[in-house]
Amino acid sequence: MYRTHTCGELRIENVNKEITLSGWIQKIRNLGGMTFIDLRDRYGITQLVFDQNTHPELATKTQELGREFVIKITGLVAERSNKNNKMPTGDIEIIVNSFDILSKSEIPPFTIEDESDGGEELRMKYRYLDLRRKPLQDALILRSKMAQKIRTFLTDNDFLEIETPFLIKSTPEGARDFVVPSRMSDGKFYALPQSPQVFKQLLMIGGFDKYFQLTKCFRDEDFRADRQPEFTQIDCEMSFVERDDILNLFEKLAKYLFKEVKGLDFTEDFPRIPYDEAMEKYGNDRPDMRFEMLINNVSDIVKGQGFKVFDDSEYIGALCAKGQAIYTRKQLDALTKFVRRPQIGAKGLVYMRCNEDGTFKSSVDKFYSQEELKKWADKLGATAGDLILVLSGDKLKTLAGLSELRHEMGDRMGLRDNSKFAPLWIVDFPLFDKNEETGELHAMHHPFTSPKIGEEHLLDTNPENIKANAYDLVINGSEIGGGSIRIHDTDMQKKMFKILGFTDEEAEKQFGFLMGAFEYGAPPHGGIAFGMDRWTAIFNGTESIRDVMAFPKNNAGRDIMIDAPAEIDKKQLKDLSLKVDRE
Amino acid sequence: MYRTHTCGELRIENVNKEITLSGWIQKIRNLGGMTFIDLRDRYGITQLVFDQNTHPELATKTQELGREFVIKITGLVAERSNKNNKMPTGDIEIIVNSFDILSKSEIPPFTIEDESDGGEELRMKYRYLDLRRKPLQDALILRSKMAQKIRTFLTDNDFLEIETPFLIKSTPEGARDFVVPSRMSDGKFYALPQSPQVFKQLLMIGGFDKYFQLTKCFRDEDFRADRQPEFTQIDCEMSFVERDDILNLFEKLAKYLFKEVKGLDFTEDFPRIPYDEAMEKYGNDRPDMRFEMLINNVSDIVKGQGFKVFDDSEYIGALCAKGQAIYTRKQLDALTKFVRRPQIGAKGLVYMRCNEDGTFKSSVDKFYSQEELKKWADKLGATAGDLILVLSGDKLKTLAGLSELRHEMGDRMGLRDNSKFAPLWIVDFPLFDKNEETGELHAMHHPFTSPKIGEEHLLDTNPENIKANAYDLVINGSEIGGGSIRIHDTDMQKKMFKILGFTDEEAEKQFGFLMGAFEYGAPPHGGIAFGMDRWTAIFNGTESIRDVMAFPKNNAGRDIMIDAPAEIDKKQLKDLSLKVDRE
Repeated sequence: MYRTHTCGELRIENVNKEITLSGWIQKIRNLGGMTFIDLRDRYGITQLVFDQNTHPELATKTQELGREFVIKITGLVAERSNKNNKMPTGDIEIIVNSFDILSKSEIPPFTIEDESDGGEELRMKYRYLDLRRKPLQDALILRSKMAQKIRTFLTDNDFLEIETPFLIKSTPEGARDFVVPSRMSDGKFYALPQSPQVFKQLLMIGGFDKYFQLTKCFRDEDFRADRQPEFTQIDCEMSFVERDDILNLFEKLAKYLFKEVKGLDFTEDFPRIPYDEAMEKYGNDRPDMRFEMLINNVSDIVKGQGFKVFDDSEYIGALCAKGQAIYTRKQLDALTKFVRRPQIGAKGLVYMRCNEDGTFKSSVDKFYSQEELKKWADKLGATAGDLILVLSGDKLKTLAGLSELRHEMGDRMGLRDNSKFAPLWIVDFPLFDKNEETGELHAMHHPFTSPKIGEEHLLDTNPENIKANAYDLVINGSEIGGGSIRIHDTDMQKKMFKILGFTDEEAEKQFGFLMGAFEYGAPPHGGIAFGMDRWTAIFNGTESIRDVMAFPKNNAGRDIMIDAPAEIDKKQLKDLSLKVDRE
Repeated sequence: MYRTHTCGELRIENVNKEITLSGWIQKIRNLGGMTFIDLRDRYGITQLVFDQNTHPELATKTQELGREFVIKITGLVAERSNKNNKMPTGDIEIIVNSFDILSKSEIPPFTIEDESDGGEELRMKYRYLDLRRKPLQDALILRSKMAQKIRTFLTDNDFLEIETPFLIKSTPEGARDFVVPSRMSDGKFYALPQSPQVFKQLLMIGGFDKYFQLTKCFRDEDFRADRQPEFTQIDCEMSFVERDDILNLFEKLAKYLFKEVKGLDFTEDFPRIPYDEAMEKYGNDRPDMRFEMLINNVSDIVKGQGFKVFDDSEYIGALCAKGQAIYTRKQLDALTKFVRRPQIGAKGLVYMRCNEDGTFKSSVDKFYSQEELKKWADKLGATAGDLILVLSGDKLKTLAGLSELRHEMGDRMGLRDNSKFAPLWIVDFPLFDKNEETGELHAMHHPFTSPKIGEEHLLDTNPENIKANAYDLVINGSEIGGGSIRIHDTDMQKKMFKILGFTDEEAEKQFGFLMGAFEYGAPPHGGIAFGMDRWTAIFNGTESIRDVMAFPKNNAGRDIMIDAPAEIDKKQLKDLSLKVDRE
């Protein structure tokens, strides 16, 4: 037997009990006659004592030990003279009678502490050691708990967990697929799913009524920061529902998770904000609502005063940073630099300070009188001590810039506290996204999304302006889930494919089986999919989804611990009838 | 709103309530003035009534309807005059006031009934329709329930659900990998996991103590009956455990599932049978213990009586089929034919009837006196009315033949009832499997399995005869799970790779990261993995794992509904630097 208890379990009431523990050596302190060892496992840390006076041979034998050795000890629980109330086992220590080394350890390449001294690449290479650190252990424990709670909620609401296949068919639409060559069918390929979208719709047609699955999805994208080629989706679909049935149910799920996982009560309804309003007020469709600082369109009050930059702009928008009139010239220059970065690309930044004496000081004083500037302050509800920041230019680009600026100011002002949560729904997305160069329409979500109720007729006349019956759940500026009411009618689905530029043959080749399925009684249905990694990261209060994945890939899509991808045997290639062909 | 209730919900106490239902039309019966429609959803069937006298226009409109149309109806719950106590809603019917057609249906290519008239291929092509049939709905509902119960049990026992990656590295050892070409790393490949084995061991080294996951695994095998290229594993691993800790815990899991899912109490311990004993008594290592009919080695009592076939045989084994002395010559000939099939390959079958008058009648009477035959009966505990069946030849082959014969007789005698369950553990497997042609040793489970405690020293001297610290859970003749205590020591692991014929370079290249991990304090650990598909099929009382998968592939590994695998775009191939090369 390796243990009677875990290293996080013993308390003052266990004093005088003979116990056995196993774990890793976190720390060794040799204080003359006494050696103290902190023994660690997933559940906690327990202090071991080796007394040179009472067990001289044992205390001497501890000299063989080192950090991260795995040992098994037997001893007596004793009350500590010097209690540590920071740890649950801090009232006791173990007077060790005997120990065995279960496994030795080299000196780890970085410290196994909350804050490690190892760089990211090194920690990725030795991920199994990095995983021993408490922040990562806690993150994966949180993730496991979230997964169970999600399943409990959904099964309690009559959802069935149904597994959909991983070896499916490539559909060139959308992001790039990972493909899997078939050995049995020469020259043919499976593809890994980017999402179970089509299969969950088929399950609705199959009559399963309510489906969910926590499942891996795959996208062969050019890697961007914090994207992973494989990620986990909480995938859900329901039949015989309208939009609000879905929003209400999944809002309940979100509140349940806030309560069960984070101990937070959300009694108010989540705001439901139309896409257009979110763009106007926050400059993006995933607003961070932990703080106000809304964007205001000030075009009407700033134009026509001779300031050519504004007069020539399609759009002029402003923010009010409460209490930030104290910003120095140097700080304002830094902000100007921030908005001029290529990622934002603004030409410049106009500011206006609301002085304590009721006057205003702007960077465009020569064009605007104090009265004119007062209009700015009134429009933004700015009062003495506030700072107004203004960007101008092309509307979409300027809104995007204002959104970034708003986040930057939120960060600087400490308004984006990761222990606070501001969830909301975005609704009424555009159905299509127009490629300005080619004029082509793309599905904003995916080609199975239905138009907003009452706007279906616009498909024939004005598809560009049609809204979708689609919705996103946003928390703290991150989209954590999205979905839609689907099309369940062959004719409308055909119309969609046509608008999206599919020929009949292409539509038939790629989605023939789904169109075929619609011919046999498809129920009205809709669903939603959440990013499990992102949601967990938000609950974990960490920025990167890597922090909540056991074995993430690096930014180049490589697993540097196992060294994958890698070359394969010539025989494997031959079996697959493939040749590597580097042109 | 599409419904106030499901089609399985309404009861006598709902009479006079106005309700709305949506679902599929199962059946339409037009009885002159009255039309009856059975409306179906996942939850059940409700009878709708359209009365020509009271709602003539509505009743007429039903003529547009057909099987599998999706409709929404509003009406009044009424007590049936002609109750149907076979269905939960059989006391009521709905007097329909109005209805809408939500979705029309072509005539389905086969009937959506418990017993369909569609052939297997047709039903696979229209899987979404086949899934509407109650046996398949029930199977997937059972599977969903099992998955939740398994997770509940494991999380209640402190297991963490941790996701391991799907894009990993190919290891030529074992079955063939499916590979995934990398676009970012020219000519390199990921592989899909055959199991998360190495990752779960790394999680133990990472200190997670108890891990589980229900996850897809992939094997590119030449397809055999009832194998699927992707299948689901219940994968578990624990640290600081010995074999019996694992057997005890997972026996509890099995009993919990029997209770929670099947309503069956298993109070007795599952038998734990050594591999060698199972082979001797049942002829295989996954015995069907729903019935006795043990194999007996009768070599010592049948040899030396002048019957050359027996005298020249390495092994002679017999079965006693209780009460089957009534078998006719014709039936015995059929059995002889059965054992002569190439799959078994026996030269012939010797039988002996225990007559009611106390005499014996055998097919080898000229070699054996009644006294000699009495010895056979005594050895096998046969009494009047029993039939003894004897096979002889090479030991392993003969045992395999007797195992098949035992199953055949069990089937014929109705002893293999799918509603009965006989679970057991097989322990003490051989560690290695010898290729008789090449003399090479292969890992019977996998190369991370540790030797049985106390036999480690045989690794150096006599690896062939060493037993493994490994175990299988068997139910009704199917292996539903297996595992082992792993090696957690670099030196022993290196020794294993050497015995298995890996060069140091090969071992380092393929498993270097695992060997490296062992250098940093690996805890003693072990685990088990269950076949989710097989376990569900057994609980479902069905033969094929296809019956418990939503979208299985056919025997050629094809999904004939979506037509995968398929050719991919030339551009996709080019992006992957690949050429199809059919030689």
